[in-house]
Amino acid sequence: MYYFFLQELKMAKRLGFCHKVSRLFQPTNVVPAGAQVKNKDILSKSYKLMIDGGVIAHAQNGFFYLLPLATRALDKLTRLVDEHMMSIGAQKISCPTLTSSDIWEKTGRLSMAGSELFHLKDRHNKDFILSPTHEESITQMLASQPALSYKQLPLLLYQTTAKFRDEMKPRFGLLRTREFLMKDLYSFDTSAEAAQATYELVSKAYHGIFNEIGVNYFKVRGLSGVMGGEVSHEFHFPADIGDDTVRSCGDCGHGWNKETNENGPCEHCGSNNISESKGIEVGHMFILDTRYSAPLQATYTGADGGRQPLVMGSYGLGLTRILAAGLEVLSLPDQLRWPPALAPYTLIIITPKEGSKESHSTEHLSEELYWSLQEVRGLEGEVIIDDRSHLTIGRRLQEARRTGYPLAAVVGKAAVGPVPAIELQNLITGQTTLHSLSDFVGVVADCSKVVAVQ
Amino acid sequence: MYYFFLQELKMAKRLGFCHKVSRLFQPTNVVPAGAQVKNKDILSKSYKLMIDGGVIAHAQNGFFYLLPLATRALDKLTRLVDEHMMSIGAQKISCPTLTSSDIWEKTGRLSMAGSELFHLKDRHNKDFILSPTHEESITQMLASQPALSYKQLPLLLYQTTAKFRDEMKPRFGLLRTREFLMKDLYSFDTSAEAAQATYELVSKAYHGIFNEIGVNYFKVRGLSGVMGGEVSHEFHFPADIGDDTVRSCGDCGHGWNKETNENGPCEHCGSNNISESKGIEVGHMFILDTRYSAPLQATYTGADGGRQPLVMGSYGLGLTRILAAGLEVLSLPDQLRWPPALAPYTLIIITPKEGSKESHSTEHLSEELYWSLQEVRGLEGEVIIDDRSHLTIGRRLQEARRTGYPLAAVVGKAAVGPVPAIELQNLITGQTTLHSLSDFVGVVADCSKVVAVQ
Repeated sequence: MYYFFLQELKMAKRLGFCHKVSRLFQPTNVVPAGAQVKNKDILSKSYKLMIDGGVIAHAQNGFFYLLPLATRALDKLTRLVDEHMMSIGAQKISCPTLTSSDIWEKTGRLSMAGSELFHLKDRHNKDFILSPTHEESITQMLASQPALSYKQLPLLLYQTTAKFRDEMKPRFGLLRTREFLMKDLYSFDTSAEAAQATYELVSKAYHGIFNEIGVNYFKVRGLSGVMGGEVSHEFHFPADIGDDTVRSCGDCGHGWNKETNENGPCEHCGSNNISESKGIEVGHMFILDTRYSAPLQATYTGADGGRQPLVMGSYGLGLTRILAAGLEVLSLPDQLRWPPALAPYTLIIITPKEGSKESHSTEHLSEELYWSLQEVRGLEGEVIIDDRSHLTIGRRLQEARRTGYPLAAVVGKAAVGPVPAIELQNLITGQTTLHSLSDFVGVVADCSKVVAVQ
Repeated sequence: MYYFFLQELKMAKRLGFCHKVSRLFQPTNVVPAGAQVKNKDILSKSYKLMIDGGVIAHAQNGFFYLLPLATRALDKLTRLVDEHMMSIGAQKISCPTLTSSDIWEKTGRLSMAGSELFHLKDRHNKDFILSPTHEESITQMLASQPALSYKQLPLLLYQTTAKFRDEMKPRFGLLRTREFLMKDLYSFDTSAEAAQATYELVSKAYHGIFNEIGVNYFKVRGLSGVMGGEVSHEFHFPADIGDDTVRSCGDCGHGWNKETNENGPCEHCGSNNISESKGIEVGHMFILDTRYSAPLQATYTGADGGRQPLVMGSYGLGLTRILAAGLEVLSLPDQLRWPPALAPYTLIIITPKEGSKESHSTEHLSEELYWSLQEVRGLEGEVIIDDRSHLTIGRRLQEARRTGYPLAAVVGKAAVGPVPAIELQNLITGQTTLHSLSDFVGVVADCSKVVAVQ
């Protein structure tokens, strides 16, 4: 990857390409002051900020365009998930979006999932669904291959692809859509014990992912529902607009989704010291046992040469939802705040106002700064220049705050003082410091590390 | 990216995770000698090799699972395309897979594209199609936003997403499928002249991409067909199983798809020195003029404040097809050969046979070699160990050749000689050289550069 990146950087330099706000496709909605907001019931803070801030655009009820800022954030999230999946030996694949209805019929889910499935027929009148999840599909694939040997297990396969659900009431923008980006992982083991060990391994990787994303979260026991199996856990971001009610025990720390145990004491220690809060479900994991492998006849060959059904687990992370829920939790009413690891750009350089004294004597300084920052580990491709020099610096800083850039480098009056300096603003904390040209890059290198682990 | 990668490497090391053939999900079909091949008419060399080699798996007619080797190759291709798109200032977005049929009705394409479209209805009985391409969708999105200013143009937006076409006769595996991965770029300009300049800019980036992929290709004039517009060019890989016949002039070098000009002399210089060959179309670019922006009313504001329809271009690269066509062109009948830039792994380490003298005295050598190679620029994540030490080295080399690993490092007898050495085999050229432990990493670093630019 490093190799690729260097090529990209070299190419960008050769072509003189740099990220500039004047070229960024970010169509912002200028809402007249005092205008009435329509569809108030479907609006959440993050949805409004993402639409007004040109991060996403509405297509149809429950369908959205992801514009460049959202795409950059999601690409980061996808990569972060890839790293953690690789660290547990999970292998990336891709299943077809269309799944033959037959195999959902075989597992009994065709009627269970009911009206939330998008159905279609091909030119030969064959029935398909747009897959909301791929337990049937991946199990069928394994069943059609030479049986795995017990020596090849556990096998962990995952994909990050668009999924579909014909929601009755899509709402809150990317929080509940009819098409969404999901990372789904399927595990295959020889026994219930081995499946439990895999479950714990993946759980650990999920904790790693959520810690790196940098939004508070909690893990609770969940219902298995239509998915089947007995054991299931959910990951939630705490938010008042969440659909779920999660209960946690003040004594032993155990947490569970209220669905699993309507009221009463802690199911773990019996304490009555229970608190409740609302959560947005951003991840879900299930032990499926042989719920899918038995009807679809996906087996492995044991040490004794006999065939046994594979023991499965299923693990999902809603990537578009993690992005939206993270923004919902962190943002202010008028300012997008991205999960630290997912900010589309880490730093924005604000050039001098045109016609100002500093704009004459600091020509090229902003671009030089841009290229110097590209050399800092962790900042390659992470910097953008706000070159709209017809706007005041103050106006551009205000917009940068609204879009949620964590750091700003201001090439302003101080850049032409007796000791030329560049202003570094932390747009989250409001902290502002001045640094000489020679120190600046080093300071940002340290500072961006802080942003990255916030 | 570099930052991410280092994290990944650190994490992998901490967890002791390394890529091993024993864990790789690559279900190979062992075809009994003399067995009759079914469906001979739909088989191409690359399709057979990809299925037999466990690179892809069949799902339904025209739908495939991309297994880990294919996914790795496609991820590389996606990244390579991203770099070149970024170098011309194109911005990545994502449009919904489902497009409302209404807007295809408005542009008149709903009936033109006819039976190749997958249609579906949602729970509210609203008509959608699974998008094969997104001219309508993206134009509609721009029309729904505040009008772009001429100062923001050219605007180049692209995505890399699954596309759908209900082919009458899917065939040759990933070459003609009903679901495929496509990079589609749309450009928006103020005038025909500006659109032509953008067309040339993108064309240059496409040449850059195909040069880096490393498969011979040619660019010819094409028909615009159902897409509309007047100007169009195609990129082809030369292959006998290609659906297109391309003609080229031996005098002036001009090329064109036979569809555009059935017979006769060179349309450019009038020469009769014409040769014909078969090609697989892997890329297509169109100037669309206002074919979509006029009916969908996507306009920009000119310098005079007046509104004009945007002048558009459309540019597609079939990523799954590029992969399959590249393999079709390069592979031998019994050996996958990947386009150099897309090989899933660059190097395979083959460990000593268990019970051999060298297996006792070189314990850990293979893993140390693995980690040392990870540090070489361009080789991070590019190395895999064939740790199936119950198989002979010869057998594993044979399989490595069949799967198409470009380089093999053999930890064999020479590793315990008086001057311990590791054997480096170029599995494409057959060249074999011996290198001391201390030299080996440096030699591979040089050699992998050669592989990368082959």
